[in-house]
Amino acid sequence: MAHLLSTSCSIKLSSSHRPLSQPFRQCPTKFLTFFTLGTSKSPFKRFVLQGGTQQASCVVRATVAPISQETPTQSSSDSRQNSSEPSKPKRVMVIGGDGYCGWATALHLSNKGYEVAIVDSLIRRLFDQQLGLDSLTPIASIHNRLRCWRSVTGKTIELYIGDICDFEFLSETFKSFEPDAVVHFGEQRSAPYSMIDRNRAVFTQHNNVIGTLNVLFAIKEFRDQCHLVKLGTMGEYGTPNIDIEEGYITITHNGRTDTLPFPKQASSFYHLSKVHDSNNIAFTCKAWGIRATDLNQGVVYGVRTDETEMHEELSNRLDYDGVFGTALNRFCVQAAVGHPLTVYGKGGQTRGYLDIRDTVQCVELAIANPAQPGEFRVFNQFTEQFSVNELASLVTKAGEKLGLDVKTISVPNPRVEAEEHYYNAKHTKLIELGLEPHLLSDSLLDSLLNFAIKFKDRVDTKQIMPSVSWKKIGVKPKTLAA
Amino acid sequence: MAHLLSTSCSIKLSSSHRPLSQPFRQCPTKFLTFFTLGTSKSPFKRFVLQGGTQQASCVVRATVAPISQETPTQSSSDSRQNSSEPSKPKRVMVIGGDGYCGWATALHLSNKGYEVAIVDSLIRRLFDQQLGLDSLTPIASIHNRLRCWRSVTGKTIELYIGDICDFEFLSETFKSFEPDAVVHFGEQRSAPYSMIDRNRAVFTQHNNVIGTLNVLFAIKEFRDQCHLVKLGTMGEYGTPNIDIEEGYITITHNGRTDTLPFPKQASSFYHLSKVHDSNNIAFTCKAWGIRATDLNQGVVYGVRTDETEMHEELSNRLDYDGVFGTALNRFCVQAAVGHPLTVYGKGGQTRGYLDIRDTVQCVELAIANPAQPGEFRVFNQFTEQFSVNELASLVTKAGEKLGLDVKTISVPNPRVEAEEHYYNAKHTKLIELGLEPHLLSDSLLDSLLNFAIKFKDRVDTKQIMPSVSWKKIGVKPKTLAA
Repeated sequence: MAHLLSTSCSIKLSSSHRPLSQPFRQCPTKFLTFFTLGTSKSPFKRFVLQGGTQQASCVVRATVAPISQETPTQSSSDSRQNSSEPSKPKRVMVIGGDGYCGWATALHLSNKGYEVAIVDSLIRRLFDQQLGLDSLTPIASIHNRLRCWRSVTGKTIELYIGDICDFEFLSETFKSFEPDAVVHFGEQRSAPYSMIDRNRAVFTQHNNVIGTLNVLFAIKEFRDQCHLVKLGTMGEYGTPNIDIEEGYITITHNGRTDTLPFPKQASSFYHLSKVHDSNNIAFTCKAWGIRATDLNQGVVYGVRTDETEMHEELSNRLDYDGVFGTALNRFCVQAAVGHPLTVYGKGGQTRGYLDIRDTVQCVELAIANPAQPGEFRVFNQFTEQFSVNELASLVTKAGEKLGLDVKTISVPNPRVEAEEHYYNAKHTKLIELGLEPHLLSDSLLDSLLNFAIKFKDRVDTKQIMPSVSWKKIGVKPKTLAA
Repeated sequence: MAHLLSTSCSIKLSSSHRPLSQPFRQCPTKFLTFFTLGTSKSPFKRFVLQGGTQQASCVVRATVAPISQETPTQSSSDSRQNSSEPSKPKRVMVIGGDGYCGWATALHLSNKGYEVAIVDSLIRRLFDQQLGLDSLTPIASIHNRLRCWRSVTGKTIELYIGDICDFEFLSETFKSFEPDAVVHFGEQRSAPYSMIDRNRAVFTQHNNVIGTLNVLFAIKEFRDQCHLVKLGTMGEYGTPNIDIEEGYITITHNGRTDTLPFPKQASSFYHLSKVHDSNNIAFTCKAWGIRATDLNQGVVYGVRTDETEMHEELSNRLDYDGVFGTALNRFCVQAAVGHPLTVYGKGGQTRGYLDIRDTVQCVELAIANPAQPGEFRVFNQFTEQFSVNELASLVTKAGEKLGLDVKTISVPNPRVEAEEHYYNAKHTKLIELGLEPHLLSDSLLDSLLNFAIKFKDRVDTKQIMPSVSWKKIGVKPKTLAA
């Protein structure tokens, strides 16, 4: 499995850097880019390299800053946290800040006045290359994204490129950036991806569990008051026949009562990795006094936020394929290109959903209202529940208004899941903190459909149907035909 | 971290093999030993190797068989399972069969007429070397153990030496041995070990979780009717303030009812790894129809079984140190050498305990009564509950009868755990299958104490006190002074 970039380079660049291709209208301001590249020989990095050839993993740490500005490390030292007396959180590390939710969150926090650093291995972009997938929307390189952000807003986001499974790399980022809060999106986040083959299943669990363990150790060692905001998933709970509470449930049994972790029934190796994370984090809160918020997020839809709308080079990714695409986004793209909406099985699968504008709002609320030392706090992060059939119906109606002839087909369910079930999940804690939801509306669906229509020429219709089967996963590496 | 044996050899031996040292009275019969060594370059193997030098992991597969006998593969082909019509389980693979519980189980199953293969990387012996520990009892090499077993009983146990995290190795063992049941003891099984430093925490979770994932994939791919008997731990449940059920609990909540996985509250990276395993196994039972029994075992005490008593070269290991030693065994050795019994904190910590003779009995019962396809069955495997103070009191009284002056001291608790709590765990399912418990008795304590006295000159008293702290675990590799 050659998931990770593997190089044997050791380079130090300190010159103005220009991308080889410039597909976007370029942001006007000139910047100086500092890159520090070093080889790391951590064994945890090398676990994903394939074959017997000698390879060294390359860790890139890049700080993008304007010529006239001091390095962010110097300019912001006054805000650094004293570990014995935590100050108001100001410095936020967004792990996975180049991804769908991470990018929108990093921009939002930067826009709100937080000092932000993105930590990302960029491996999500490699997955696209390996699987022959692409975002519906053209997305700029992370370097150009950050230059553009600086150009448009005058705000700097620091960038550390590397793998958090490499503890040496992660340690350096912690010591350099000194975060008050860490938002951890940095995981392989697709259930179908984790069910492609044994290699991807193992990669998903190793990558997610060990990466999160490393974050916990880094917090303990270097920033013990730092608040961990960890992205979990509503999928951890499965579909129990009782109401789903937020993380905990009070059980009376044989005359005795206790409040215990809500039982989990995850249904993919990806969802299971999130359950493992939750258990590991809960333990370190108790044993070490870590302060953590686990955001059990529902299915995210939408693409635009206030910040990504500022410039086309800030555009977020939008996945419509069978591996990374989520239900509502996929349906809008299918409608736009005249493909029938692909309902898996009976379509009664019900889940919590939220607009990506609420994702960024929820994370900000969690950061601004941190967990206490030793507290493992769980919020269910979604705003509304829908069944797949309900979503298909909504998209059909919205499409008709735009003159689209939207059909729906039922395809054999590639997953193992209940297709008709009770579902009622609580989601009040973020509302209590001040979340003002963007509920799914006609105007949002119009906007999303028009967005999909705008880019419909970029759609590869071969990527629409599900290609991964929960039952057929095998031990041989699965390759996709070109 | 250099946990694993790492070599770059590729050797094929096919000659009679003699150990370099012969500390035991040798078993008389001559045997021919076949070794097949091959290099494996699986990336999952190399993750635990340290540094940047090029290393290839060495997988040893050894089959020990008497000269006059056909190879086990040939001689036993008639008992091979037809995957569409499962026969009575006959061929049992014992992963981790060189360890404390695994060795006793492998011999017991062989003695009961099962065809047994041991799969083991022997890494437990390396841990002893690295940490400067040793079993109270002298133990023979796995090769000599198996030769002796054949000599004493005429029964052959096959041996596959390698790491189940290396899927290529595991695949070959499955294809070669074709198990009807897999008993999986092959995990890093010490809570303190997992709390030594970050490297060992990561190693424990990677090793246990990925090893078990590989076993699940191997069953799915090569032996889909094979019954997985997986060793879990009672420690997965923690100490809830309600009765602990066997794996599942029926919850009525807001007027609705469901039977759900019992909530888990593990309290070390080791215990957490077992929770992760349980969740992964449960998912594959549902998704793939795997048949599995999760044996949530309590704390095991004792050393002798009917089989290990047959010859001193068959002796089991007995750990008394602060890393691998379990409560009652440690106390008996402490009493034997005149060391005060080391009660951690208040000593009210209550757990389930069982005699190692019941471990082997329970595993046999699980194999003889396999789970159904798709069933994830959980048994709580212990026979009695004791608090640490109760155990200290029992050992004190038993010691006095033998003329020992047994003191008890309270040492600062190195763990993070409740020291006084409610505890009532169900354990009826194995009884219903026919378990006849060996309850803790004066005679067992006499025997165990006498055993400890016999070997007391081998005790390194420096290893008695706890050396690992749950709160002080750090990111730097911890080394022990010589």
